[in-house]
Amino acid sequence: MICVLKQNVSGEREEQLIKWLKSLGLGVHISEGERQTVLGLIGDTSKVDADLIESLDIVEAVRRVSEPYKTATRQFHPADSVVDVGGVKVGEGLTIIAGPCSVESEEQLVGIAREIKKSGAHILRGGAFKPRTSPYSFQGLKEEGLKLLSVAKKETGLPIVTELMDIDHIDLFDDVDCIQIGARNMQNYELLKELGHINKPVLLKRGLANTINELLMSAEYIMSGGNENVILCERGIRTFETATRNTLDLSIIPVLREKTHLPVIIDPSHATGKANLVPPMALAAVAAGADGVMIEVHNDPMHALCDGAQSLTPARFDQLADQMRKVREVVK
Amino acid sequence: MICVLKQNVSGEREEQLIKWLKSLGLGVHISEGERQTVLGLIGDTSKVDADLIESLDIVEAVRRVSEPYKTATRQFHPADSVVDVGGVKVGEGLTIIAGPCSVESEEQLVGIAREIKKSGAHILRGGAFKPRTSPYSFQGLKEEGLKLLSVAKKETGLPIVTELMDIDHIDLFDDVDCIQIGARNMQNYELLKELGHINKPVLLKRGLANTINELLMSAEYIMSGGNENVILCERGIRTFETATRNTLDLSIIPVLREKTHLPVIIDPSHATGKANLVPPMALAAVAAGADGVMIEVHNDPMHALCDGAQSLTPARFDQLADQMRKVREVVK
Amino acid sequence: MICVLKQNVSGEREEQLIKWLKSLGLGVHISEGERQTVLGLIGDTSKVDADLIESLDIVEAVRRVSEPYKTATRQFHPADSVVDVGGVKVGEGLTIIAGPCSVESEEQLVGIAREIKKSGAHILRGGAFKPRTSPYSFQGLKEEGLKLLSVAKKETGLPIVTELMDIDHIDLFDDVDCIQIGARNMQNYELLKELGHINKPVLLKRGLANTINELLMSAEYIMSGGNENVILCERGIRTFETATRNTLDLSIIPVLREKTHLPVIIDPSHATGKANLVPPMALAAVAAGADGVMIEVHNDPMHALCDGAQSLTPARFDQLADQMRKVREVVK
Amino acid sequence: MICVLKQNVSGEREEQLIKWLKSLGLGVHISEGERQTVLGLIGDTSKVDADLIESLDIVEAVRRVSEPYKTATRQFHPADSVVDVGGVKVGEGLTIIAGPCSVESEEQLVGIAREIKKSGAHILRGGAFKPRTSPYSFQGLKEEGLKLLSVAKKETGLPIVTELMDIDHIDLFDDVDCIQIGARNMQNYELLKELGHINKPVLLKRGLANTINELLMSAEYIMSGGNENVILCERGIRTFETATRNTLDLSIIPVLREKTHLPVIIDPSHATGKANLVPPMALAAVAAGADGVMIEVHNDPMHALCDGAQSLTPARFDQLADQMRKVREVVK
Repeated sequence: MICVLKQNVSGEREEQLIKWLKSLGLGVHISEGERQTVLGLIGDTSKVDADLIESLDIVEAVRRVSEPYKTATRQFHPADSVVDVGGVKVGEGLTIIAGPCSVESEEQLVGIAREIKKSGAHILRGGAFKPRTSPYSFQGLKEEGLKLLSVAKKETGLPIVTELMDIDHIDLFDDVDCIQIGARNMQNYELLKELGHINKPVLLKRGLANTINELLMSAEYIMSGGNENVILCERGIRTFETATRNTLDLSIIPVLREKTHLPVIIDPSHATGKANLVPPMALAAVAAGADGVMIEVHNDPMHALCDGAQSLTPARFDQLADQMRKVREVVK
Repeated sequence: MICVLKQNVSGEREEQLIKWLKSLGLGVHISEGERQTVLGLIGDTSKVDADLIESLDIVEAVRRVSEPYKTATRQFHPADSVVDVGGVKVGEGLTIIAGPCSVESEEQLVGIAREIKKSGAHILRGGAFKPRTSPYSFQGLKEEGLKLLSVAKKETGLPIVTELMDIDHIDLFDDVDCIQIGARNMQNYELLKELGHINKPVLLKRGLANTINELLMSAEYIMSGGNENVILCERGIRTFETATRNTLDLSIIPVLREKTHLPVIIDPSHATGKANLVPPMALAAVAAGADGVMIEVHNDPMHALCDGAQSLTPARFDQLADQMRKVREVVK
Repeated sequence: MICVLKQNVSGEREEQLIKWLKSLGLGVHISEGERQTVLGLIGDTSKVDADLIESLDIVEAVRRVSEPYKTATRQFHPADSVVDVGGVKVGEGLTIIAGPCSVESEEQLVGIAREIKKSGAHILRGGAFKPRTSPYSFQGLKEEGLKLLSVAKKETGLPIVTELMDIDHIDLFDDVDCIQIGARNMQNYELLKELGHINKPVLLKRGLANTINELLMSAEYIMSGGNENVILCERGIRTFETATRNTLDLSIIPVLREKTHLPVIIDPSHATGKANLVPPMALAAVAAGADGVMIEVHNDPMHALCDGAQSLTPARFDQLADQMRKVREVVK
Repeated sequence: MICVLKQNVSGEREEQLIKWLKSLGLGVHISEGERQTVLGLIGDTSKVDADLIESLDIVEAVRRVSEPYKTATRQFHPADSVVDVGGVKVGEGLTIIAGPCSVESEEQLVGIAREIKKSGAHILRGGAFKPRTSPYSFQGLKEEGLKLLSVAKKETGLPIVTELMDIDHIDLFDDVDCIQIGARNMQNYELLKELGHINKPVLLKRGLANTINELLMSAEYIMSGGNENVILCERGIRTFETATRNTLDLSIIPVLREKTHLPVIIDPSHATGKANLVPPMALAAVAAGADGVMIEVHNDPMHALCDGAQSLTPARFDQLADQMRKVREVVK
């Protein structure tokens, strides 16, 4: 870590800072420049609060040489991680996750599960607990929804991923293969810490206004607790553009490839909010090197009571899955 | 609620939609235009999921006439609400909340509490549980911090406000006069629902990338549960500008005045991240009509281990408090 | 166009508005709802200033049924447009534009032009006039640069595209096949109007903070003047994310496909600012259905005096061009 | 300027860089750290393209110690600048600029000019050339509008400020006291360069998505040409929030106070887009220390053909002007 001091800092204040930095267990390499002093901090700087140091009035700038995350960084873990979700190896080849936005009924869920399996999907998604902006909107079938997911899993053999909103519900998730943490909870640190102590894969979605580094720091909250089975998911960020619900930031794929060894999944359905935008963005995600995509499929979009218009029909999904595999062939 | 249908929608699909809208308990007033049909939805539309309707492929646009929030809206509650925080009437006159970012020690906290009281502050703030981007950053004194807040309260008589991050900690908050919900938890709906069932004022901070309407919907989560003692707080939003930590959106004050009866507090310390920017923005907040401000004060900013550089010294705060009262005189 | 009036608007004010709307040459279809009135505006609404109407205090909302652009919209021009750039048909198949950020010397430019032609590029790009944030940064070789572009064109037969910053320079652009308008000038309306009167293709780049609709309105400025040879180009928008220089918004491709008949080109080099991010984003652009890509290539990135680190070597470009053609095969 | 090299950079590449930096006329102070090298660049770094250096693959980070602008920075010009606009000293006391969005007629303009003068306004504003998103919207009375501004100036003695969109119109601006450059042209560098060669004050508006540093660099374009009479103006930035037209970033006031000696004006009318939001934000601007405000006033908002709903009536403006002066008394 490089710490550039402001000009004309009194020797006394400089001493004070250096003493404090050393008290944090860091080695301090001082290089006196003509106009200002630069401190090189040596040791485990991942535990250092760079914001705090930069906020000191005698400090001009702080630059990390190594990233602030230890377990998520590729620096100390060059090989790609593969996360096992009920037998599916996420991070090996292209993983296709599909299913309805919300679980509505056994007939609906099992029907869709059978269809997507035929099209080559590997994991079934479906919301039982739904985070909704309005307290008056449909909040999901909750426990009943989880039971239906288990039925669909039994019927088709597809592992299941579904969202957890409160750690107190964890006992209901025994049969769930992968826990999804939604964008709104990406910085719900108390929840993340709890997930560090269980032994299930976690699909962590990027918050609407969170940077890529913040996403990795949230992954670090889980991993530092002992659970390293984390899958990162981009689902669109909030910008000034209103033509799409959110702006899908696909450049996150190559950026994360450099920074971390964790697998990266893209969710074009929530990002765009419109069914006709999903196939092009799903293909783009695969072309950019995503480890997988998560796509909403519904047997009757018009009837779906949640985000109907962003769901694909099984027929359209089948065609898309085929194209995605072909694009993967080209870029792998 | 106005629902504009697309052109050339088949009568059958239109029937289907109208039937479904009526099944939601709404009256539907149909007006056939030359090119398209406009539906007027009558009844309690606050429970209607406008996003869902707008997402239907036969719908051109949906416009609310009444807001989606029932208890927070000024429409059904024209008079300003006043929230009682340990005897302090937030919403009546200018409320000044001050204190350190983090509780560090009894000496520090009680010392600051005495200083700010002398300067005319009404409520003491101080973090015991600290949400930090990095799991390796200082997370607060937790339970010990809450005890110190109680001591400072006893010593000075100032009511206290502090952040709650997990409902499981609620028992520790008995002596806390106002529960703060941080920006990162603004859409932690499970937590908000729980707060609807307790009888304590809640200071709800706007999320970094949340709209004013989303802030009101989150307030609605709390209020719809029965707890109407909600105070709204702007603390800066995330934009492209990097000269300040966040962009303080003061126009939220007059906008909220129109939309809701709830009191509005501004936090210029977290928004700007720099002590020298705090006084001008605090004065601006008062001039724009804020019901109060929340300001970080520290007796030794250089030494503060959390956000030191955004804290004012007691002397600077004393001067600011005086100016704020004078500005209030002009604009009230 | 649908105009929803507020509730309890006096008949007199309503009359006033309707009279004024009719004075704009519009037919007005009035439908009185139970709670409010909805006006259907019939006729050529493309000339109506929707913002103005919505800003009137008796108006609740205004919704366009047809887009505000007449010549750019697909509504009145269902077939895709093909723009001829020196014999290259942009909008038919995949168009590859490549070249250095800045023109530096004949040897550099002709060398790169020969390389990219071998790799299958169709058009040569290179900056002669460079818009730079700082008046002290290299501003391009200007007229000399344009001469070198002509030399490269003669040597290789590749048509050339380069940026125009001031209409007073237009005489120097005789031999240029396509005029590029940079992001910073997307709303330089006086310049756009002038381009409407010349007969050369224009590559119009999206502004850093401009919506897709604003991009189309700027295209309309050119087209309404008579020059319909407009190519739209996405080069990244400004968001809170700092890991990439800008955020490449690829969802613009399917969105523009619906809204307009104009060809869409993606520039991943300026959007990402880093060479290693360019290939994945270029492949993503092709997978999402772009009509073409514009890529910076330099024979000696280390030495390039402008945006060196975002340029690909000819070898890397050759490999990418091959992959792009294969992805195109899959998705076309 | 501090330049931090990456780890394990070969001595040869380091030599190459240092040689090149020296060729730019800079002194290079090398300090070899344990893990990496830090270069201190001495001399006139304002002409150095930091982005270019940072983009080099062997460079970890570049930090300026002095700002990239020489004439706009407070560093070399500690005293506040005062810009004389037709006898009004902008930068001394509170300057109030007011007038209609667009010049419509002599009766309208002179009427408003007389009213605002009575209320204590110092400068008259009014648009003759109007930048509009749509080519079909009202574009202003152009030359005729400038003539009417001169009439109003003669009638009232108020200096006038109005927008210039194309340098070719400059001859028409002889009688204009201050040239306004709108947000869309903030980075129209060819226009800015021309303004550096004339001897008239320029009111430079911040672009919708431009950083504070970019605003200062654009001021530098004008000042480096010799015209140092620049007034900076904030008029709202583009964010995700849609409750207001733009987000007024008032923290720009104290930030600019530190960085530059130029006067700062706030335009709350365009930022908010709604008349009822203008007074609170205008008062907030004064409380935050603005040198002046620019406010739209119209004698008949309902009838105004441009941005009617964001204009204040003369009566409301009179009341606001009085309050602004009182707030100024408190904070000056």
